[in-house]
Amino acid sequence: MQTFSIAIHGGAGTILKKDLTAELEAAYNKGLEEAITAGYNILEKGGTALEAVTAATVSLENCILFNAGKGAVFTKTGTHEMDAAIMDGRTLDAGAVAGVSAVKNPVELALAIMQKSDHVMLSGDGALQFTKQQGLQIEDDAYFFSQFRYDQWQLVKNENVIALDHNIQTEKKFGTVGAVACDAHGNIAAATSTGGMTNKNFNRIGDTPVIGAGTYANNATCAISCTGHGELFLRAVAAYDVSCLMEYKGLSLQQAMETVTLDKLVKINGEGGMIGVDAKGNTSLVFNSDGMYRAMQNSKGEKQIAIYR
Amino acid sequence: MQTFSIAIHGGAGTILKKDLTAELEAAYNKGLEEAITAGYNILEKGGTALEAVTAATVSLENCILFNAGKGAVFTKTGTHEMDAAIMDGRTLDAGAVAGVSAVKNPVELALAIMQKSDHVMLSGDGALQFTKQQGLQIEDDAYFFSQFRYDQWQLVKNENVIALDHNIQTEKKFGTVGAVACDAHGNIAAATSTGGMTNKNFNRIGDTPVIGAGTYANNATCAISCTGHGELFLRAVAAYDVSCLMEYKGLSLQQAMETVTLDKLVKINGEGGMIGVDAKGNTSLVFNSDGMYRAMQNSKGEKQIAIYR
Repeated sequence: MQTFSIAIHGGAGTILKKDLTAELEAAYNKGLEEAITAGYNILEKGGTALEAVTAATVSLENCILFNAGKGAVFTKTGTHEMDAAIMDGRTLDAGAVAGVSAVKNPVELALAIMQKSDHVMLSGDGALQFTKQQGLQIEDDAYFFSQFRYDQWQLVKNENVIALDHNIQTEKKFGTVGAVACDAHGNIAAATSTGGMTNKNFNRIGDTPVIGAGTYANNATCAISCTGHGELFLRAVAAYDVSCLMEYKGLSLQQAMETVTLDKLVKINGEGGMIGVDAKGNTSLVFNSDGMYRAMQNSKGEKQIAIYR
Repeated sequence: MQTFSIAIHGGAGTILKKDLTAELEAAYNKGLEEAITAGYNILEKGGTALEAVTAATVSLENCILFNAGKGAVFTKTGTHEMDAAIMDGRTLDAGAVAGVSAVKNPVELALAIMQKSDHVMLSGDGALQFTKQQGLQIEDDAYFFSQFRYDQWQLVKNENVIALDHNIQTEKKFGTVGAVACDAHGNIAAATSTGGMTNKNFNRIGDTPVIGAGTYANNATCAISCTGHGELFLRAVAAYDVSCLMEYKGLSLQQAMETVTLDKLVKINGEGGMIGVDAKGNTSLVFNSDGMYRAMQNSKGEKQIAIYR
């Protein structure tokens, strides 16, 4: 019988037990538990991988703790610019949005772009216009606000880009959420969503909405969702590289993800991690940073929720 | 001795001899000749592949006939939104810009993003702000205007997206420019620039500025610049797929480009083409459409300028 499974992440980076209070740790675990359950329940009822990754990602977007949707980081001008992508491994259809504001669930917008537009990638105000046309939910600034992210922004907002990046280098937290799933039909899908980097400038786009870099899915190989220092994942075409290592070199999901995350990305200082699934329902969660908010569950009864290495 | 070489393209699609007047054909050939010469001269003087692809792409952007820079197509709102990318195969550094207006040479902006920012990809108004900060040249609407593109836009501007795409499907012209080069040191680079699709809406982003899709370069494999129906090239992660077929399956540049362009892209109706170079100075120009504006020149004395199949 086909194993169905789901894996999620809520970002990677310098996440150390000593830095998290017991309350905050419990809150993160609860957020991960809710998201994995939202996705797994769909798979259990015979739903598709596409539906499962959407539901899990929406759950993470709606949780104020994670840097996506509600609780997204602030840009240099105090706004929230969000990126998201989704890909269906069965059809190789994909949808992505870059630098959109006010959209409650950017992953649902990515799905609408995939299913209801002739395009793969929309951005900025145009993407917001499409959102409204599709009747997707819009929220005001107050919805996205979180004191934690605001304070984080205040700390760095007056520094210039170099200083900021130095700061980010010190902090090394790459807030992104994502999900990958394999359904009972052996179809797989991937979704990723993020608010990007705190204090980001110039309408910067990271790897999240870039098909092949932060997000990729193909039934023949794998579904991958990444989190990390976006620029390096972009240059590495990280998600598709995993797929190619499987397709062209015959590596397993685990081997391919380890090659990219623990070897190739490390060599270019590409800190972060990724979650993956193949069409047999195998899951893999790999990261080269100190921690990655993550969870997995499958129909063989395995379940894991973890934060630290 | 190391062969140095350069290849350029000015877009692919339904380009038939019967549709081009002798004057227009001569004008296109002149535009291609000027661009290949601009790039080749740099290589001949010992310049880098990065400098050569930039110069050739700038030349194509400055030629009103091609859909990039001056002469870029009109969006649904009558503006020009341009995309460009550049990648250095020696360092795997990359720069890209999506949906920027008013910038005379988007490829130079992509280069500045690569060399002078901490980011790989900027977009929209933020990218324009960065352009001004860098002192790159800005032009007004009149500079980008071309009667031909305006008339093209008038024909479709009142149709909705579906009708427009039907129209574009009929026309099947994918205006993009790009260059790939291998210098005397065996370093390679790729650059691509475009105005996108006529009457495009919602700040659509195509494959051009997406590292791995429309543009990729890696000394270990190849430098690739694509032109075609962007959405399909995005889903296929076309440029990086060529690189992976070479690296992981041992295919030659020509074999890998043919696999992607004449087989994999054809299977998903991904009409278009690509130009490529490897670190030995081999060049390849492959397309599955009726024509592709293209040229190549190398230090072995080979030179070609062509339009039709």
